[in-house]
Amino acid sequence: MKKAKDVTNAKVKIIPLGGLEQIGMNITAFEYGDSIVVVDCGLSFPEDEMLGIDLVIPDVTYLKDNIDKVKGFVITHGHEDHIGGLPYVLKEVSAPIYATKLTMGIIENKFKEHNLLKTTKRKVIKYGQSINLGDFRIEFIRTNHSIADAAALAIYSPAGIIVHTGDFKVDYTPVFGDTIDLQRFGELGKKGVLALLCDSTNVMKPGFTMSERTVGKTFDNIFAENTKNRIIVATFASNVDRVQQIINSAHKYGRKVVIEGRSMVNIISTANELGYLNVPDNILIDIEQMRNYKDEQLVVITTGSQGEAMAALSRIAASIHRKISIKPGDTVIFSSTPIPGNEKSVSKVINELSMKGAKVIFQDTHVSGHACQEEIKLIYALTKPKYAVPVHGEYRHLITHAELAEGMGVDENNIFILSSGDVLELGQEKGEVIGKVPAHGILVDGLGVGDVGNIVLRDRQHLSENGLIIIVITLEKYSNQVLAGPDIVSRGFVYVRESENLMDEAREVVNMSLDKCFHNNVTDWGKIKTEIKDSLSDYLWKKTKRNPMILPIIMEV
Amino acid sequence: MKKAKDVTNAKVKIIPLGGLEQIGMNITAFEYGDSIVVVDCGLSFPEDEMLGIDLVIPDVTYLKDNIDKVKGFVITHGHEDHIGGLPYVLKEVSAPIYATKLTMGIIENKFKEHNLLKTTKRKVIKYGQSINLGDFRIEFIRTNHSIADAAALAIYSPAGIIVHTGDFKVDYTPVFGDTIDLQRFGELGKKGVLALLCDSTNVMKPGFTMSERTVGKTFDNIFAENTKNRIIVATFASNVDRVQQIINSAHKYGRKVVIEGRSMVNIISTANELGYLNVPDNILIDIEQMRNYKDEQLVVITTGSQGEAMAALSRIAASIHRKISIKPGDTVIFSSTPIPGNEKSVSKVINELSMKGAKVIFQDTHVSGHACQEEIKLIYALTKPKYAVPVHGEYRHLITHAELAEGMGVDENNIFILSSGDVLELGQEKGEVIGKVPAHGILVDGLGVGDVGNIVLRDRQHLSENGLIIIVITLEKYSNQVLAGPDIVSRGFVYVRESENLMDEAREVVNMSLDKCFHNNVTDWGKIKTEIKDSLSDYLWKKTKRNPMILPIIMEV
Repeated sequence: MKKAKDVTNAKVKIIPLGGLEQIGMNITAFEYGDSIVVVDCGLSFPEDEMLGIDLVIPDVTYLKDNIDKVKGFVITHGHEDHIGGLPYVLKEVSAPIYATKLTMGIIENKFKEHNLLKTTKRKVIKYGQSINLGDFRIEFIRTNHSIADAAALAIYSPAGIIVHTGDFKVDYTPVFGDTIDLQRFGELGKKGVLALLCDSTNVMKPGFTMSERTVGKTFDNIFAENTKNRIIVATFASNVDRVQQIINSAHKYGRKVVIEGRSMVNIISTANELGYLNVPDNILIDIEQMRNYKDEQLVVITTGSQGEAMAALSRIAASIHRKISIKPGDTVIFSSTPIPGNEKSVSKVINELSMKGAKVIFQDTHVSGHACQEEIKLIYALTKPKYAVPVHGEYRHLITHAELAEGMGVDENNIFILSSGDVLELGQEKGEVIGKVPAHGILVDGLGVGDVGNIVLRDRQHLSENGLIIIVITLEKYSNQVLAGPDIVSRGFVYVRESENLMDEAREVVNMSLDKCFHNNVTDWGKIKTEIKDSLSDYLWKKTKRNPMILPIIMEV
Repeated sequence: MKKAKDVTNAKVKIIPLGGLEQIGMNITAFEYGDSIVVVDCGLSFPEDEMLGIDLVIPDVTYLKDNIDKVKGFVITHGHEDHIGGLPYVLKEVSAPIYATKLTMGIIENKFKEHNLLKTTKRKVIKYGQSINLGDFRIEFIRTNHSIADAAALAIYSPAGIIVHTGDFKVDYTPVFGDTIDLQRFGELGKKGVLALLCDSTNVMKPGFTMSERTVGKTFDNIFAENTKNRIIVATFASNVDRVQQIINSAHKYGRKVVIEGRSMVNIISTANELGYLNVPDNILIDIEQMRNYKDEQLVVITTGSQGEAMAALSRIAASIHRKISIKPGDTVIFSSTPIPGNEKSVSKVINELSMKGAKVIFQDTHVSGHACQEEIKLIYALTKPKYAVPVHGEYRHLITHAELAEGMGVDENNIFILSSGDVLELGQEKGEVIGKVPAHGILVDGLGVGDVGNIVLRDRQHLSENGLIIIVITLEKYSNQVLAGPDIVSRGFVYVRESENLMDEAREVVNMSLDKCFHNNVTDWGKIKTEIKDSLSDYLWKKTKRNPMILPIIMEV
């Protein structure tokens, strides 16, 4: 009796530290009593206004403050937005990592680069297997996604079972492995699911996502039609099944395969070693061997499908790749769709390839790895959760997901649209947001983690739009007499040679400001600088309608 | 006989000064003997890497060099990418302007702002009417587009008839006016068309563009379903037919209409004055009057459908609009699709609106103003040109258009994919590119036209990514003794307070460089600066993996 009562009163906390109101940087803490389990630990790529930033990682202050409770990181799959934060976060919150085999292989590649292999405990988990982490038990459930070995999680807590889908789709004819374990979702639903945390990426799209296998058919058709020239296929490095299908078509049509691009080479060799690729003997050749084959005997699989400036395909298109240059007749396949924000870069690469005579194909050569509306409904129908917590999405995705969940019978008061940092407490009786923890992204710039913030970014923005003007003056310490200057240096403002008048007049304006200050016995450097800044800024705006950063520097001798 | 022979030998030049290998900045010169006619004079918006640039206008050096030949500017329609360069270009190349009524109205709005109304000759031309400009005769032909009064041009030259479609689509049920004058295209084809310059914007899309009227039906449905709340519609300011249809739905469902956003107010009042809008009495109300009506009696038509930061809808979404704030239940319609590059800004606005409780609709609420493949084929079938010159497009559009033209029977040697600046000479015998004229875009930043170029942009890029470090040193003139400094100032680099050690060490590095120089009797300032720059740059890269701009400044006293 007592135990039963305890169960009813038990409450579990769900604390997303990222991944909400954004696509990327997925990380969620589950807390009960003295146990915290962290699901995923991703990074996100900088927004346009984060000038010069390389990547953004989650703020794990809450985990650091509760370090003794943290039992481990449970990872759903090997994409950067789910694993990319690990090397940074583990330096502050060391805990064991649990993941499926391929996911762990990709994580280990990353750890090698960061020298973390020896210091981090890791355990590979199979589908259907469970692990006990403090008060939690975590079961890995097979799903389909655009990377093999993706898992959903059943998180057993004293307050009930929480199902976290990770990123998923329903593929009835997957290229590798089996269909998502819908039976298990159904069984869990029968037992009773307290809460469902479900992928929202494609929730605004009606219908079903097509099977990965449909892309294979398109490849076969393209290979059948283009028998005389070289074929180059750009896709996501981590889409091992896609690469498998390209290899299949290459095999069928008697072409050798070259893998190009650092991340592609890394992931494909890991996948191959671990048995996630079925590669016919002697089909893979080294890039150096290409010269031994005719164009019609070759297919190159490469990174750069998003138009990333430094990726192999972009370098090929710009004729700065050391080994591959485009010839007229080359067939280039974009096996991808542009991620929002990358449309123009992708167009640029397509234009460059076309100008060099390549034929560019991008129709029916990609399917998404995320569930559309009907697949999401299927998961709700199977799990019948009491509470719904839409995850992985911007606000517009989450709100659409919430409507879908209500349509699937979840009580509207039991649907929670969270922001990163919200502390959601769920029990059988009720669920509510009971607090907030820090969850702003931490900016990484070069080796610096968190040393660039709003002021630095605002300065970069200002400099990027208008450039700067530096005024240097050397004053005599006691008399305040001007010993040297004002010297004016500008960068990113105007062509100085064509604007000599402007610069001469600017110097005049500064001299007048100085005269004014000295005449009024203003000797405070701060005040002098402000006077120079204001008058020069006024003058330049009037003359140019521009607003450069103005930096007066006073030296004293 | 002689004349006939002349006609056969006559050659006309086509010189695009913009609009090729890009979308935007359309301007093309047609030259025969002593006559040049310029078709359109647009601007383009800056690419991502053109930091701080406001807009880009065409380089008209060729027109300036041949100013006596220039007979006039003939404008196809009133969009910025066809008229936006006029105020800048007319200052250098003054010539009369010919356009249809609404197009001229919009141009005159622009001229008022630039004080050009008095100094520029203008003539309004009707569909079917012709004007003689030197050796050319230009006929205006009715088309359909996303702005009323769009025209194609038949350019009669001694070498033959050239047809320029302008931007167009085929709308069999247009909202205002009649269907594109397909008969006239057919008649011209019968007479014999030397060359067709045809819009390539949508050439990669199969099928037909839907009629503008289909959007009206969607509006009616949305208005019928949303009877209890306010409706806000964002669309392109210049899409007068779209605004007409919103007004029609508002009238049908008993709502008053508020027009908001400066460019929207300008164009709609011009269109209304000139008779291009049919506005029921008393339906338009001032924004101040909104408070006198209930939400369900109001519809707001606004700018900002592209997520432009300063446009009305973005300000409304960000709660910084002075007159309108979002209430839960507001229905916001995006009557537009994001122009490539604007996807993320539009998403941001949608997220902000959703968070404030608005319902956001963007399905079936927009159609393109440009012809898809079947419409383009129709124009080829009617005009049967000898030469095809695809215009208005990036390279990937032009190459696809070239394939389409070949499929429509144009000899592949008679299809010209031009770059801006190419001089194409066409005669009955043959066509060839015979030269090149300057045609790089001119950057406009504030009041400055052309005073920002690659070096300035490279500096802005550098500053935007890494910020800068300034080192100031005052030296004694004769002894080279350091009198003051080195002082170090940084902006956009790191939080200085959290990086005091780094700055102290940087100062040490500079001191060591100075010592090294003086020890080796290096007194040349250039060499001293280079030494400081190199050693500091090495140090900072090692410590931070960042590469700020380093500016050593030496003063002497």
